[in-house]
Amino acid sequence: MSTSKTKTAIGVDLGGTTIKTGLVSERGKILYQNKFPSHSDRGPVAVVQQIVRSVRDAMEHKPKGKLMGVGIGAPGVVDDDGYVKAPPNFADWDRVRLAKEVGRFLKGMPIAVENDANCAAIAESKFGAGKRHKNFLFIIWGTGVGGGIILNDRLYRGPTGGAGEVGHITIDYNGPQCGCGNRGCIEAYIGQRYLSQRTVEKVKAHPNSKILSLVGGDYSKIEPIFISQAAEAGDELARSILIEAGTLLGVAVGAVMNTMDLRVSIIGGGVSAAGEVVITAIQQSVRARVLKPLRDEIKVLPAKLGNTAGILGAAGLVL
Amino acid sequence: MSTSKTKTAIGVDLGGTTIKTGLVSERGKILYQNKFPSHSDRGPVAVVQQIVRSVRDAMEHKPKGKLMGVGIGAPGVVDDDGYVKAPPNFADWDRVRLAKEVGRFLKGMPIAVENDANCAAIAESKFGAGKRHKNFLFIIWGTGVGGGIILNDRLYRGPTGGAGEVGHITIDYNGPQCGCGNRGCIEAYIGQRYLSQRTVEKVKAHPNSKILSLVGGDYSKIEPIFISQAAEAGDELARSILIEAGTLLGVAVGAVMNTMDLRVSIIGGGVSAAGEVVITAIQQSVRARVLKPLRDEIKVLPAKLGNTAGILGAAGLVL
Repeated sequence: MSTSKTKTAIGVDLGGTTIKTGLVSERGKILYQNKFPSHSDRGPVAVVQQIVRSVRDAMEHKPKGKLMGVGIGAPGVVDDDGYVKAPPNFADWDRVRLAKEVGRFLKGMPIAVENDANCAAIAESKFGAGKRHKNFLFIIWGTGVGGGIILNDRLYRGPTGGAGEVGHITIDYNGPQCGCGNRGCIEAYIGQRYLSQRTVEKVKAHPNSKILSLVGGDYSKIEPIFISQAAEAGDELARSILIEAGTLLGVAVGAVMNTMDLRVSIIGGGVSAAGEVVITAIQQSVRARVLKPLRDEIKVLPAKLGNTAGILGAAGLVL
Repeated sequence: MSTSKTKTAIGVDLGGTTIKTGLVSERGKILYQNKFPSHSDRGPVAVVQQIVRSVRDAMEHKPKGKLMGVGIGAPGVVDDDGYVKAPPNFADWDRVRLAKEVGRFLKGMPIAVENDANCAAIAESKFGAGKRHKNFLFIIWGTGVGGGIILNDRLYRGPTGGAGEVGHITIDYNGPQCGCGNRGCIEAYIGQRYLSQRTVEKVKAHPNSKILSLVGGDYSKIEPIFISQAAEAGDELARSILIEAGTLLGVAVGAVMNTMDLRVSIIGGGVSAAGEVVITAIQQSVRARVLKPLRDEIKVLPAKLGNTAGILGAAGLVL
């Protein structure tokens, strides 16, 4: 393959703390990557400036060949008119037409914006675990539980761009209180904060667990990464916690599969890095929950792209 | 409007006991309707013959103008290749390519087949409560709980034609046993049999309820129609049972709306005939369950077409 003429795109992963921007080849290779502070506490104008800075920096590393455009993955809801609405942790940001604002500084450049979970779904579809699957539910399991739905190799955005909000599927209508105001959302069981709280209770009852030694005996430091580490080290309590969490997530995933006639789910985000134990638990739970015709075809796969999914998916918007 | 030239289609509503077939105008008027036994206990060949008989009978009543084709709504899963798979209560029926089999007897006539719940969704979209809504979740609430999803005025079938199976969405992962083998499916709370059983328990605790007098004191006769009648007559227990059932259904509907970015749900089927009490309960429950941006836009509407939805939707497949 000649690299003398490579089609590229710039992918921007806008987070509350940092902007990660990459120059991405058509095949999904990150040729260059930078990192800028997002200045999310200073209002939209400051954030737009930082995005433009990071894009201009990436442009300087462009190889020969066409630059197809700039894609931006943003937190919050991105509607059909390109407005980014109320992203969490961004100050003074009600709704901002982000592509248009960034475009003022990058004349003539095609610019696309999409929700960050949806970007990660696109990345897995084009370059990751979803390459061989035309239809799947992508789950991003970290602080919260988000998702993106790929139908026929394309993102399903829903009528107004809000599709894929699987974190607030109810798995027990009498269940624990969720930050969204309801009861029993899957996020209220397995979102990072909730999972950590639930784990604290369990470790108190089993203080011999490796989880507690990993945090030096400090309960307030318990979080999913230590559950994963303890599970890897063979800790039974940690394993049971991950299996329970995966089983619960499977209930919500099964609901989506029944409704939308899907068979494949790809699990990304920090907690999913716990690996095989969690993935197997999710898969078994989904299989138990879906209707018979789907059962044998259910596949739950770990995401492949990790932290780069945001950049790759954002670039994928214009590739 | 001149009726001298009316585009028409024949809609076939195939049930386990009877076939209802209608000649339907482009505007959704049933110009003629018949009823044949479906002979579902005699195997697919007998059923096909009965369908053909009913269609030929309807054809004789065709006005001037073009007959666009024959649409068939069938129970069971209808896959992308037109196979009708294992419809409940049909003997010796594994999978039958129904359009092809019926077509042998109706040379040159376009024939389409679709799942019956999906047909009812199409009917509401084209001719009923969904005429003004491009995107909605249709629920059919009777013996079981089924559904159909309309996106952009068209049926969303999913990758293999199985979409809309909302009856087995879990609303409590520790909930009561469902016929499908799982626990806590919405159908296990509000499907006709389950709702009746739950009502029997409640009436036993409140034997003064009008429900009991409506069935002449015979608990085994309690079914949803009597709950509705008692509620209409002002019976408090009956009202509370309907409100609870609607609230539970709203949990499942809310999950679909969050996932697919929908705002409208249309409720059909026998139990929904209970009317305003149930519809209001569903709507309040959905509003409480969906994410904030959707909340104020949620509309839950009663279906408009009642028993004719099957015929109209089947005809709608070819209109």
